[in-house]
Amino acid sequence: MWSCITDFFTYETTKSVVVKSWTIGIINRVVQLLIITYFVGWVFLHEKAYQSRDTAIESSVMTKVKGFGIYNNNDCELVLSQGASIFCIITKMITTENQIQGFCPETESKYVCKNAAACKAGKPAGNGIQTGNCVPLNATHKSCEIQGWCPAEVDTIRTIPMPEVEDFTIFLKNSIRFPTFNYTKGNFLPTITQQYIKTCNYDKVKNTYCPIFRVGDVVAYAGQNFTNLANKGGVIGIKIGWMCDLDKSDDMCKPEYTFTRLDAMSQKNAVSPGYNFRFAKYYKMDNGTDYRTLIKAYAIRFDVLVNGNAGKFDMIPTLINMVAAFTSVGIGTVLCDIILLNFLKGAEQYKAKKFEENIPDYILLSQSSKLYDMIFCFLNK
Amino acid sequence: MWSCITDFFTYETTKSVVVKSWTIGIINRVVQLLIITYFVGWVFLHEKAYQSRDTAIESSVMTKVKGFGIYNNNDCELVLSQGASIFCIITKMITTENQIQGFCPETESKYVCKNAAACKAGKPAGNGIQTGNCVPLNATHKSCEIQGWCPAEVDTIRTIPMPEVEDFTIFLKNSIRFPTFNYTKGNFLPTITQQYIKTCNYDKVKNTYCPIFRVGDVVAYAGQNFTNLANKGGVIGIKIGWMCDLDKSDDMCKPEYTFTRLDAMSQKNAVSPGYNFRFAKYYKMDNGTDYRTLIKAYAIRFDVLVNGNAGKFDMIPTLINMVAAFTSVGIGTVLCDIILLNFLKGAEQYKAKKFEENIPDYILLSQSSKLYDMIFCFLNK
Amino acid sequence: MWSCITDFFTYETTKSVVVKSWTIGIINRVVQLLIITYFVGWVFLHEKAYQSRDTAIESSVMTKVKGFGIYNNNDCELVLSQGASIFCIITKMITTENQIQGFCPETESKYVCKNAAACKAGKPAGNGIQTGNCVPLNATHKSCEIQGWCPAEVDTIRTIPMPEVEDFTIFLKNSIRFPTFNYTKGNFLPTITQQYIKTCNYDKVKNTYCPIFRVGDVVAYAGQNFTNLANKGGVIGIKIGWMCDLDKSDDMCKPEYTFTRLDAMSQKNAVSPGYNFRFAKYYKMDNGTDYRTLIKAYAIRFDVLVNGNAGKFDMIPTLINMVAAFTSVGIGTVLCDIILLNFLKGAEQYKAKKFEENIPDYILLSQSSKLYDMIFCFLNK
Repeated sequence: MWSCITDFFTYETTKSVVVKSWTIGIINRVVQLLIITYFVGWVFLHEKAYQSRDTAIESSVMTKVKGFGIYNNNDCELVLSQGASIFCIITKMITTENQIQGFCPETESKYVCKNAAACKAGKPAGNGIQTGNCVPLNATHKSCEIQGWCPAEVDTIRTIPMPEVEDFTIFLKNSIRFPTFNYTKGNFLPTITQQYIKTCNYDKVKNTYCPIFRVGDVVAYAGQNFTNLANKGGVIGIKIGWMCDLDKSDDMCKPEYTFTRLDAMSQKNAVSPGYNFRFAKYYKMDNGTDYRTLIKAYAIRFDVLVNGNAGKFDMIPTLINMVAAFTSVGIGTVLCDIILLNFLKGAEQYKAKKFEENIPDYILLSQSSKLYDMIFCFLNK
Repeated sequence: MWSCITDFFTYETTKSVVVKSWTIGIINRVVQLLIITYFVGWVFLHEKAYQSRDTAIESSVMTKVKGFGIYNNNDCELVLSQGASIFCIITKMITTENQIQGFCPETESKYVCKNAAACKAGKPAGNGIQTGNCVPLNATHKSCEIQGWCPAEVDTIRTIPMPEVEDFTIFLKNSIRFPTFNYTKGNFLPTITQQYIKTCNYDKVKNTYCPIFRVGDVVAYAGQNFTNLANKGGVIGIKIGWMCDLDKSDDMCKPEYTFTRLDAMSQKNAVSPGYNFRFAKYYKMDNGTDYRTLIKAYAIRFDVLVNGNAGKFDMIPTLINMVAAFTSVGIGTVLCDIILLNFLKGAEQYKAKKFEENIPDYILLSQSSKLYDMIFCFLNK
Repeated sequence: MWSCITDFFTYETTKSVVVKSWTIGIINRVVQLLIITYFVGWVFLHEKAYQSRDTAIESSVMTKVKGFGIYNNNDCELVLSQGASIFCIITKMITTENQIQGFCPETESKYVCKNAAACKAGKPAGNGIQTGNCVPLNATHKSCEIQGWCPAEVDTIRTIPMPEVEDFTIFLKNSIRFPTFNYTKGNFLPTITQQYIKTCNYDKVKNTYCPIFRVGDVVAYAGQNFTNLANKGGVIGIKIGWMCDLDKSDDMCKPEYTFTRLDAMSQKNAVSPGYNFRFAKYYKMDNGTDYRTLIKAYAIRFDVLVNGNAGKFDMIPTLINMVAAFTSVGIGTVLCDIILLNFLKGAEQYKAKKFEENIPDYILLSQSSKLYDMIFCFLNK
């Protein structure tokens, strides 16, 4: 029994050969130096491996658009969840007033007809369901008749986007929280005064923390041409990045604004470019019949995307990475041995020293008796 | 001093014993082979450990629903953020026309009363706040009176969903961007022509990249029965997956569409199944009094979920994983030693060779003088 | 050729020195024990390293607000995507009836003027674009004239929030799915009955799984004072957490509700506190002119945030981590060697045993002939 315990508490360490060779010695230390540099410089300093991270940022965004144009801008805000992180600003509209449920000629060019044969009853057309009749569209042409909201919209009308939009301002209010560290912050830095906000406009140089953005600037920062964008509509992303090192002072945790065009495809691709949608305002006549104003709106949609990444010193990752670093230093030996035993003069002698003379061959596996001995050693004694 | 430097630049390597045993030799190589296979096959080829990844995909989604039915579909789109990644299609409605603020009997069956005693003044009922009176509901029954929009809605009416919805089409436009690699792409592949889009309909076999989806197909792909879904309402998820290996050609980075029912619970659970909501259209009489049309709408809601994962060759992960692979090959020795020293015939002899004769015991720790020697060695000399 | 193969299948193992020292033996075992404890206790039991994880939870949220107050609550729901994960409840309103497009004095105090000189034509004011005239605002003051919706809103009116909101109830329906494991679940636990839902109200003690939440309770759980919140408006986050160990029974996978104020900044920061937005209802006169009712609404916005994390046993991570554990046990030796060779009495003797006598020095690198030998050994023979 006792011998088992003494056996248990003996310590085995590898027997080493010391090689007094400048070449290999220097190579060895250089390799070790590289490994240490990697861990200190990259893993610890750059990647901050001594911190625990929180990327599951909680965020709430509120927005307000200010500006006046020939169109009533509320329409767009109305139909989008106010103050949410998506909103849009209408740049041009095609309005079809006083539509009522009824029968009228289809306006889409491809439904122009000579006679009823060309019109399939029950088949949906551009603005309603075909009745199968071919009726006069205007003095010169006839078109398939549809049932639906009449008169049908003519969306080929040329309208010019309203230039005022370029001077509209977007007010952004963003509060964030890193749950792991229970750290909350907002894009209104403590330094910002009521007075400043009244007057400021964001720009990338001087007013990098002003929460009010001029539409024209945002579009420009996203690398877009306002006139084109306003004409076809599009989606602009306003990204708010929170990269916070909570080991540093609280003031260092600031929002960073970046701007991109999200529907990039619209530019490349000729097929259905831009962004537009339809909505309607509903009214009732005295006799109770519904009528509506249909609006096809071209708009710039703004998506506010918030992302964040906070780090704070933590014991566990620090320890794990230090152990990793220490043990990794040993890796150098692998490389050095290859050199030592193959490329160095007198490699043969090194080999002789490193490897002991061989042992006669045994092919068969024994009936793992040895293992049981070890176990019973504890049990039986 | 000099001796310190020479000491510093000596190289230590472990002394090894060479065992000429087929058994252990083959086992050793096999184990090493397995480890190499794992790293090459799984870590590098399958997991692509040589790439840096970007999963923080930026996405913008635009949607348009086309179709005509007995209900005006815009209602639903109107109240949802157009073109956003959530939209719905109303399948059936219960409409209560000409409601005005006033007093009327509650329609919910559980508020039927014999006399005022059963009605609690001030307590909210189904459609308004109780006045405490018990008033005639119809020829046979009386019900508690409420204050609110009157007449109160009767939502027990049986209405059938409109079948046209099955043939409605959903137009999806999705642009994505992988910020790390500044790679942008859209679900309109370059191969897609204006002509194709006019005519195509998505299906899992031939038109896997057509951005137009028939509602009926989507519902079917999600494994749902349209009639049931349309009747009770529900939420369908349209998932767009972008798994892109940016080391391969650009054409290989394509969207993959999958469809699931998101409110799965609604199926299992009898308690409040399906999806419905209420909204109202507001009108004014000439005398200025407000009145409204209340609509209880059963709808299919579509949530478009975009996720992505792009990889591109990067030196750092490649190096790290190669080092890991090389060093891991050594692990085999651990296993082999156990076998060698326990299960092989003549293990005793191996032991004798591997372990050198023991050294007499020293219990006490010295006053760590040795360490200081080493340090002073540099300082003092 | 044959000799190459035999060479290939020889097995090298390190030669070890056995040290019969209680001190070092115990230290060695203790260190190994610590390492094993870390892996078993932390890595496997706490971090569940034997499971593969899925955090890409798919979720669908439906909400319904019930309650009656002096304001018609639908307004707010109307303009927000119903049943989506963001909705709001209006607590107070400033209503401006019968606005028409026209000319009227600006109501914002800072546009009070003595004469036209103070008013800049074309410049936007608070409620419209200035005409450049200075017109009577009331008996005593004059103000710059604007063009826009008139009469201009006076949003300095004191209104009190409606207390009824505190008793409104929020009905939450949340279905989730972990795609990796194709596991679906909902916040209506199987144990919940139709009867229970009719009557229950969520509370943190007894009814932790009731899906109906009283607004007052939610606000309280978020650590807010209802009266203040209702007065200025704000954003409350309702977080639903799904932490599921799918190796355990299905009943263990339950939702956990937590509540926070998301626009935390609003509290700290005096600049634009709270949450409010504007929207309008549009009407038409018989003569076709549009008029509207503008509403400035103070509201409590509720964002429902769902997050989840499911784990299930998986062979690959289990194996990898077990290998890591086994090999890590060896790390102890590094520490022990340092002690053995520096701090232990008789360290010199240990050194003598561990390190073999040195080998003469060779500076120059040979022309890597040795390597080629090895390779050709296979080719030529």
